[in-house]
Amino acid sequence: MPRFFVTQDTLSGKFAHLTGEAASHIRVLRLEKGDRVTLCTGDGLEHEGVISDLQQGAVSVVLHASGESQSEPKLKCSVYMALAKADKFEHVVQKATELGAAEIIAFPSARCVSRPDERALAKKLERWQKIAVSAAEQSGRGLIPKVLTVSSFEDAVRRACEAELPIVCYENEAHHSLRAAVTGAQVSTCALMTGPEGGFTEEEMTFAQSAGMQVCTLGPRILRCETAPLCALTAVLFSAGEYD
Amino acid sequence: MPRFFVTQDTLSGKFAHLTGEAASHIRVLRLEKGDRVTLCTGDGLEHEGVISDLQQGAVSVVLHASGESQSEPKLKCSVYMALAKADKFEHVVQKATELGAAEIIAFPSARCVSRPDERALAKKLERWQKIAVSAAEQSGRGLIPKVLTVSSFEDAVRRACEAELPIVCYENEAHHSLRAAVTGAQVSTCALMTGPEGGFTEEEMTFAQSAGMQVCTLGPRILRCETAPLCALTAVLFSAGEYD
Repeated sequence: MPRFFVTQDTLSGKFAHLTGEAASHIRVLRLEKGDRVTLCTGDGLEHEGVISDLQQGAVSVVLHASGESQSEPKLKCSVYMALAKADKFEHVVQKATELGAAEIIAFPSARCVSRPDERALAKKLERWQKIAVSAAEQSGRGLIPKVLTVSSFEDAVRRACEAELPIVCYENEAHHSLRAAVTGAQVSTCALMTGPEGGFTEEEMTFAQSAGMQVCTLGPRILRCETAPLCALTAVLFSAGEYD
Repeated sequence: MPRFFVTQDTLSGKFAHLTGEAASHIRVLRLEKGDRVTLCTGDGLEHEGVISDLQQGAVSVVLHASGESQSEPKLKCSVYMALAKADKFEHVVQKATELGAAEIIAFPSARCVSRPDERALAKKLERWQKIAVSAAEQSGRGLIPKVLTVSSFEDAVRRACEAELPIVCYENEAHHSLRAAVTGAQVSTCALMTGPEGGFTEEEMTFAQSAGMQVCTLGPRILRCETAPLCALTAVLFSAGEYD
């Protein structure tokens, strides 16, 4: 069944009145009166209904069932990715959304090559959020992952440490594995942090560790900065049974 | 240490004589006499040495140690991906190489949109193999994954079934999970097959199952055809401890 994200205010009792993007998307897909659709309010709830009327730019839906989205991971994984070149970050936003990330946080770090100013960052953020909406829609998520930025590495670490299982992946860590960090961990929130093209500095890792993060290896191969977050996210969600 | 893939015939006793791409790559990186390099013969062996001479188009290396690559996964995972649009397949070749795939096999299936003729496919294959070489070099692999094509879905299934653990991921499979398929499996070879943009047909899955493949779900979210193989590969290698 086609799924659309709608804002809360489109719902009113047993009806939904769609305008704007959702309505034109429905027309693009050539849906007709009587076709069934799922409307997601992006808060983890889903509303099933039947198209009752189609006008230019406006679609009415009669709702018959609402419930929690069955496709949301129970484990809330936040992906903290150091700022990288635009296409790499966009790639991670799209794929992490598909794979089940709860939120995606961009942060600067010592060796980041990409250093957008505040205005450029605000523009990027808007674009990233759109990518997340579209990927969430296509992959059948019940929640749209929020894409955020924090202004320093230290702030990113402090925020990550609010999760029950805060992990940073570091290519110079030789022993402590992600598998050891997650095996048997009964947690409902996890933070996964990965570095920029040039890697983290030793000082950054000392700070992260002292703040409470587990510093983990992703193995003997060197993963690109856009591959590492998706590898870690997949591994952690898989371990938690979220791909079952 | 910079790593380069070289052909077996560049090695002769305690010396290596590089020409062609490897030699020009060394010049591009501005390496100098006395710099240490690792030469990989792509067969799982690595040779460490020191640059002893640099000429236009030719580099000599004195070798001082040889041994098995420490970065190769013990579990040999073959990735079978249905033919997809060029950029998607290229993406998977690059990422699967980084993540540790042993080989990557392209095959046609009923709902494949991409149907290159033999000549176009030969050209693509050449390009894909180059992508694999470059990704193997960058990620520190000891083996270059071979990129192959087989001419039918049935041939792909039969070849996949030569692995000890042949798995196909199917979005309409509701119960049998990849986690159940791999947990506790003591195998040294695994085949992971994923479908095209439009998914596999039921008939294809019946054939695969009767041939001996396990049909597995990747969970309730819908993964794109280029995300599914990387998700499955990461999950299986992670489970086997290859990211430790």
